[in-house]
Amino acid sequence: MTPPAAPQGAASPPPTPPPLPKVLAFDVFGTVVDWHGSIAREVERIVPGIDGDAFALAWRDGYRPAMAATMASGSFRVLDDLHRDILRSIAPGFGLALTAEQEDELNTAWHRLDPWPDSAAALARLKTKFIITPLSNGGIGLLTHMAKRAGLPWDVVLCAEVFRAYKPTPEVYRGVGRVLGVRDDEVMMVATHHNDLDAAQDAGLRTAYIARPLEFGAKHLELKDSERKERHPLHFDSIHELADYFGC
Amino acid sequence: MTPPAAPQGAASPPPTPPPLPKVLAFDVFGTVVDWHGSIAREVERIVPGIDGDAFALAWRDGYRPAMAATMASGSFRVLDDLHRDILRSIAPGFGLALTAEQEDELNTAWHRLDPWPDSAAALARLKTKFIITPLSNGGIGLLTHMAKRAGLPWDVVLCAEVFRAYKPTPEVYRGVGRVLGVRDDEVMMVATHHNDLDAAQDAGLRTAYIARPLEFGAKHLELKDSERKERHPLHFDSIHELADYFGC
Repeated sequence: MTPPAAPQGAASPPPTPPPLPKVLAFDVFGTVVDWHGSIAREVERIVPGIDGDAFALAWRDGYRPAMAATMASGSFRVLDDLHRDILRSIAPGFGLALTAEQEDELNTAWHRLDPWPDSAAALARLKTKFIITPLSNGGIGLLTHMAKRAGLPWDVVLCAEVFRAYKPTPEVYRGVGRVLGVRDDEVMMVATHHNDLDAAQDAGLRTAYIARPLEFGAKHLELKDSERKERHPLHFDSIHELADYFGC
Repeated sequence: MTPPAAPQGAASPPPTPPPLPKVLAFDVFGTVVDWHGSIAREVERIVPGIDGDAFALAWRDGYRPAMAATMASGSFRVLDDLHRDILRSIAPGFGLALTAEQEDELNTAWHRLDPWPDSAAALARLKTKFIITPLSNGGIGLLTHMAKRAGLPWDVVLCAEVFRAYKPTPEVYRGVGRVLGVRDDEVMMVATHHNDLDAAQDAGLRTAYIARPLEFGAKHLELKDSERKERHPLHFDSIHELADYFGC
């Protein structure tokens, strides 16, 4: 990372560095795993001839509206169920009449997302000094199966399903400190989405940004905002850089 | 383990072995960690001169009544809170007037329980073939901090706090399959307590018993029933023997 500019002028004593966080909570889709490339690959494998790139984008496009509708109804559903509804709604537009078996196999493709190349090794480094957890809108099962396959060495699996609410609801961010018995400012949210970090910071957490310019695939660089934001000065190009920053 | 006796008589074809479970869910206190020895040690360290052995037994004695009272009230509280209430109720009988700091340090002793000598290595073996999780009445934080210190390599941390109910409520056992997307009979409960295994089997799970004759300490072997029960024929002397049984 490029360090923020040091203050100029008066010879004041160097500021005390903030104490280390105790928990690093990671956004998963996009930050730790390559959802776009993995879903495109799985869709093309299961339904040969389809445009996996477009299908992956369409599937993901349904995600926020589906969560918003669920929250508006005052209920909670695991992401696997939302994914299935979206899959059913977009399949006809791609000319697909899925068998029940294909639908199951496609829907669990979200459990089989590949990690970015640095993720597993860098998380193992961070695990030596911090409690590391996902903090995702994915469910417990999805995140556990994904971690098992991808070698993500979480200490615990925290997510929307544990707190019965989705990010960016403040209770989800504050849930981490509550269940782990640490203060909110001892939790650092790590994500490649500025809105996730904004909400985490509003809830009292610390934040670090990981740039993942390829989140939407090499053909859609314009969909991704990887600019450094003033509000999130910890801005890294990989999780390894975060581990370097903390001396892990 | 001693294998159950093979059926005698007619030369019937050997029975098909049952398919492997997909998830192994472990009771923690007594099965994976030595709560009695660890609490006795911590109590004697924090409050020198006290009878740690008797204090550990008294603290644990309050556990079932505290859960029963909470369940009867239709609410849920994490075990850390129940432990604190019990601690406050038993301390005067031991002549203790605890400072707030001593109380905090004592109460988190339950986060610092030592594993039995086989636990961490044997769990690592089982992790190569199964999803391994605690299924404990301890809370998410307690189990996470304990695992971090003791090197218990859980894939996910399931417990009473996730399901807002305590064992032996059937919903806790069935919660494992529900959140992980497997059938109840694809989950095997592993415990050193027959009543835990009975309840798991009533809820549709498979079971394996681990003998821990020293659960209540070497002075109290009479408090522990490590007999083989017909209902739980998988009966092992260590978690390594369970890993041997599954060829891990």
